[in-house]
Parts: sequence; C-alpha cells; structure tokens
Amino acid sequence: MLHAVIMAGGSGTRFWPASRRDRPKQLLDLVSGAPLLRLTYERLEGLVPPERVWVITNHSTAMACRKVLPEVPDANILAEPVARNTAACVGLAAHAVSTGDGDAVCLVLPADHLIGDDERFRSALSAGADAVARDGGLLAFGIQPTRPETGYGYLEIGEVETQIGRWPVCRLAAFVEKPDLERARAYVENGRYLWNAGIFAWRARDLLAEMERQLPDLAAGLARIGAALSGPDATAVIGEVYPSLPATSVDFGIMEGAQRSWVVPVDFPWSDVGSWPALADELPADDRGNAKRGRTEAMDASGNVLVTTGPVLAVVGVDDLVVVATPDAVLVVPKQQAQRVKDVVDRLQELGWEDVL
Amino acid sequence: MLHAVIMAGGSGTRFWPASRRDRPKQLLDLVSGAPLLRLTYERLEGLVPPERVWVITNHSTAMACRKVLPEVPDANILAEPVARNTAACVGLAAHAVSTGDGDAVCLVLPADHLIGDDERFRSALSAGADAVARDGGLLAFGIQPTRPETGYGYLEIGEVETQIGRWPVCRLAAFVEKPDLERARAYVENGRYLWNAGIFAWRARDLLAEMERQLPDLAAGLARIGAALSGPDATAVIGEVYPSLPATSVDFGIMEGAQRSWVVPVDFPWSDVGSWPALADELPADDRGNAKRGRTEAMDASGNVLVTTGPVLAVVGVDDLVVVATPDAVLVVPKQQAQRVKDVVDRLQELGWEDVL
Repeated sequence: MLHAVIMAGGSGTRFWPASRRDRPKQLLDLVSGAPLLRLTYERLEGLVPPERVWVITNHSTAMACRKVLPEVPDANILAEPVARNTAACVGLAAHAVSTGDGDAVCLVLPADHLIGDDERFRSALSAGADAVARDGGLLAFGIQPTRPETGYGYLEIGEVETQIGRWPVCRLAAFVEKPDLERARAYVENGRYLWNAGIFAWRARDLLAEMERQLPDLAAGLARIGAALSGPDATAVIGEVYPSLPATSVDFGIMEGAQRSWVVPVDFPWSDVGSWPALADELPADDRGNAKRGRTEAMDASGNVLVTTGPVLAVVGVDDLVVVATPDAVLVVPKQQAQRVKDVVDRLQELGWEDVL
Repeated sequence: MLHAVIMAGGSGTRFWPASRRDRPKQLLDLVSGAPLLRLTYERLEGLVPPERVWVITNHSTAMACRKVLPEVPDANILAEPVARNTAACVGLAAHAVSTGDGDAVCLVLPADHLIGDDERFRSALSAGADAVARDGGLLAFGIQPTRPETGYGYLEIGEVETQIGRWPVCRLAAFVEKPDLERARAYVENGRYLWNAGIFAWRARDLLAEMERQLPDLAAGLARIGAALSGPDATAVIGEVYPSLPATSVDFGIMEGAQRSWVVPVDFPWSDVGSWPALADELPADDRGNAKRGRTEAMDASGNVLVTTGPVLAVVGVDDLVVVATPDAVLVVPKQQAQRVKDVVDRLQELGWEDVL
C-alpha cells in the first residue's frame, strides 16, 4: 500500500525571527493561513489516507506536529531523539511503515516546500509510486530548473525506461552535488539536469536493502529499532540506538550509489522557500514590488520583503530590505544579505538572548 | 512664592511607534529609565516643592501624569478639554497658581525636553525667577545655539539690565520666527541670537496683565475660568469656556509684543528631543555609531538609531536607519527622512489601524 513519509525534522534558522527552536519553518504559517506541514499533508488528499501518513520529526516539535495534523494517528508521528540526517530518517520511516505492511511503498516528502499545482503534483507522485511498486528501485522526482541555482543538487536524466500516464520514468544517470555558477548555468542550458527536491518514492524493503548494501552500520542500527518498533520498548530503543547511527544524507548515502534508480521529471511549480527573499516570490506584492504579509504599510519604498506575525509594520523610504516583525523580535537586513540571518541567530545565542531563539 | 508650570499637553506623533495618543512623548521613558515628564519634575527638586508644581495636560493623559508624579497634588494637574495653544495654557496656569497666592511667580517649562546639567539649570531658573519677582516683566531663557537650526525661534539679546549671581538679565531686543538656513547661520555667527526653548518666568499677575492688554478675548475667557477655579463648577466652566478661547502661542501672542521682556542667556546642554535622530544624540552608541536603547544588536551596520521598548531588535548590513520596535508596531525609516513618521501616522489613520495610534 502507498504511504507518505513527511520529513519534518528541520530546525532551520533561516526564518528567524518568525521561526524558533520550538517552531521551525514547517510549523510556520508563512503564506496561506496554514503551516507548511499542514499544506504538505493536505496536498496528499486523495492520494494517501491519514492513517498511512507518517511524520518524522523531533521531540521539540512532535506535539506541535500532532496539533497541526489531528487526522494522523499519534503513533505515526515519530520523534528522532537527535537528528542523524536524512538517510537515518527515511530508514526509520521504512521500518515503521513495514511493521504493518510488508509491501509498503513510500512517498518521501519534505514538510516545508511549496507546490504550485497540487493536482499535477499528486498525478506525478502517483505515477512514481506505481513505477516503484511494479519495478522496484529508488525513484527521485526532478524539478525542471528555472534558474542556475547553486544551492541545490542536480539529477541527470538518463534514458526513458517507461511512461506512466503523462509521466516518463527515466534512468537516473547521475546524482550531482551543488554546482558552481558556471556549471549550474550549463546544467540549465543542457536541459537534462533537474533539481533534486528531496522528493522520492520506493518500496520500503528496496530502500532497506540498498541501505544494507551501502550503509550496513546504519542498516544494522535501524534493524534493531525496527524490531522494537511495535513493542513497548520502542521509545527506549530509539533513544538508545539513534544517537549512535551514522549521519549521512539519503542523496549521497543511498541514491547516488543505488543499483536501480529512476528519475521522474516534473513540471509543477515548486519552491523550497529557502529564505525570506524566496518566500517573497510566494507573497502578494504591491505596485512597487513590496512583498507583504500581515498588517504592513510601505511608503516611498520598493522591493522590500515585509512580514509581520502581529505588530503593524511601517516602512518609509527604504528599498530592497527584508523586515520581519514579531511581538518579541524584529529583523532588518538587506535582501541581498538575507542568508546572514543565520549569523544573527548565532550572535543572539552568544549574547544569551535565549528567549527569542 | 515660586511655582513651576509644566506644559504637558503635547500629543506629538514624532516618536511613533513608541508614542501613542494616550502615551505622548512626555510620558515616554526615552533615555534614562523615567518618563521625560518625571525628569522635568525631578529637575526642579530643591527649587520648587511638589505642592507648587502644576501640570497642564489633557484628558487623555491626566491620569498617567498623576501616576508619574504621585508627589504632586491631584488638583495641581489640570486637563485642558481641548488644546488651545500655549497662550491659553500659561494663562490657565496663571489663574490656577494665583488662586492661593496673589504674588505667585511662575517658571514655565515644557515637559519633554532634556537638560544636560540640572544644577546649572536650577541656578539659571532661580536667577530668572528672582529677577521677575523683583522687577516684573516677562522673561525668557535663551539657549546658546550650537548649530544653524531652522526649526526653532530665536531671541535677540539686548542690553544687560542686571546681573543675578552668574546670570545676566538682558532686555529682549527681538523675538524672531523660525529663520531660513541662511539667516540661521547668520544668527549663530552673530552671537546675540539665542534659541527660544519655551522656558519662561513671570509673576502670574504680570502675565495676565499683558494678556489683557494684547489678547483681551483670551484674557476675558480665562478670567471666567479663573473665577470658577476654586469652586465646585471648575471642570464644567473649563469645559464650556476653553473650546471658545482663541488659540495662539505665548511666543507671538504675548512675548513678542510684551512691554517689558527679558532674556537670560543660559549655557546648560539642552535638547527638545524633537525626533528620533535627535534622541540618538542622548543615547549610548556602539563603536560604529549605532545609537541604541533596549535589547538591540547591530552587525556590519553603522549610524543607525535602534530603539526597542521590548522586542529584541537585530539589524544586519544597514546604515543610517531609524528602526523602532514595540510589541505591536515597528517603524523603519532612513534617519534623513525621520520627520516622515508624521506621514506614517496619518497613513495608518487612513487605513483605520486605530489600535496602534
């Protein structure tokens, strides 16, 4: 049966001050009146029923995830005691879904992305799931790049293996690390390189087999957890074993060296909403290009990203700034330097201002 | 006896979002842990006892003024039902102080200025009060200008009439309206022109006599109020008469045409703290010239004015901005355009965001 595994372990700081340790990006209502995790869940409607939706998160946010997804059984929301990167995460999920379903097929999804066309998204994911249910292998969904982005990995498309509905299933020719700008430009021009969005499909047992082959230590640790999962000691065993697991990404730990791997090129609008300026593309803008969320007013100002979670935010005579206001913390930074919010968070930690982290 | 009349009727918007309708500048703790009104009161310590301190304010802020000045008798805090400019204000005060003291001498002070040397301030005011107690006339204290300011009126010094302690009491040769920049430069160079800081001394009866001579309508209205002040109908009579009083300033309505007027040149550091950038001069600054108040952090940023009344305020990579954060409203504006906060307040009113005005 088809399961959805939502990876919700992120504790990113790129959306400070809206995001906090106990309220990471996936729990934020950044664009549409609902947390990104909720949007991710709702996007699966009709494809995967709530009882087969799984969320892998951490102890700080598990309760909040349960509140955001009341339809999902509490037992399906698993908390990693520590983050061990995505290979461990998808492996834990594979054991969890297999407990009651030996033929489980997993769709793996980040909790905090935005998709511009939910129907096309479901159609593509359904096709990918059908492909791996029938033929096995590990399948990645590749996003048509719209710019020479150096922040993502790329998937090189190989030959078309089969076609499911409107969706070709291709061999994954290569898995490419984040390129420099020159190579990124070449990839976009070439047309056969797609963005790796971290969206995957596989049978749980195929993933675990690949893990055993490529990452035997990780597989062995996860097998111990898997054996305990349905028993009374599950939490204790996870707490004991998980911290000792090797931390590696599913991309380079498993996908890159997988024996059978596929890529489905998809063309739905997609954003990983990686920064305040990236969020701006998803927000309504006034006629001077100020992207706005909440009660904000811009006078003689243009190109700003103005977000408030409560306070009225007024700017006059400034351009191309990110200004984010919350009741207890405010950030001002030029759009071009928005990645420096990480430095801000580090600095506030040095200052001991823990109450706003 | 010597009385102090603190003019606390201002409802200025120049310190939005820290200031609000019911919390104008004089009630704000902008620099030192106490509201400006409180600092103004404490500055009089040893010069005027609490029972001879009078505060003229309005209905929105009278209660708050009483809280800020618990030592001052409630009856000494008078609320104007509507603002009718400063001539009416000082006239009302003159009647109030005269009720119990026919020889009252008034020191008139704005509630919202900062003084850099309280002892020198008291010494100068004491000398001015002595002069008018002995010789009558209306006396203004003139501030040695430190820049060609076009936002203030100027007082031209005439001949020295007498000397009280270290303080010369001079004839007031002329009362000059706000000049253009060229004239302001000439005034500063000339050396005989002082800033009009709105600080005055006079016998109450001398002020009322000048008012009767120059502004008979105002004097008549105030006389009606004066007659009712100590009776049970005081509030009702003020409420009825005050709105009909002509609105004019003490400067041009009375001082400019006064028959006997004096100026005492004073040299204590003074600021009317007329804007966020003016406030910056009174705040501690970091080594890149960021003036700061509250929990603020500036990274790769210089020349900013960073004020918070609660939220943590973090700025990165921005220069010469005013950023003010409160729990329910945030302002960002270049220092050079700080006077536009008034436009912001007007705009928010248009938008109907009354909760933050």
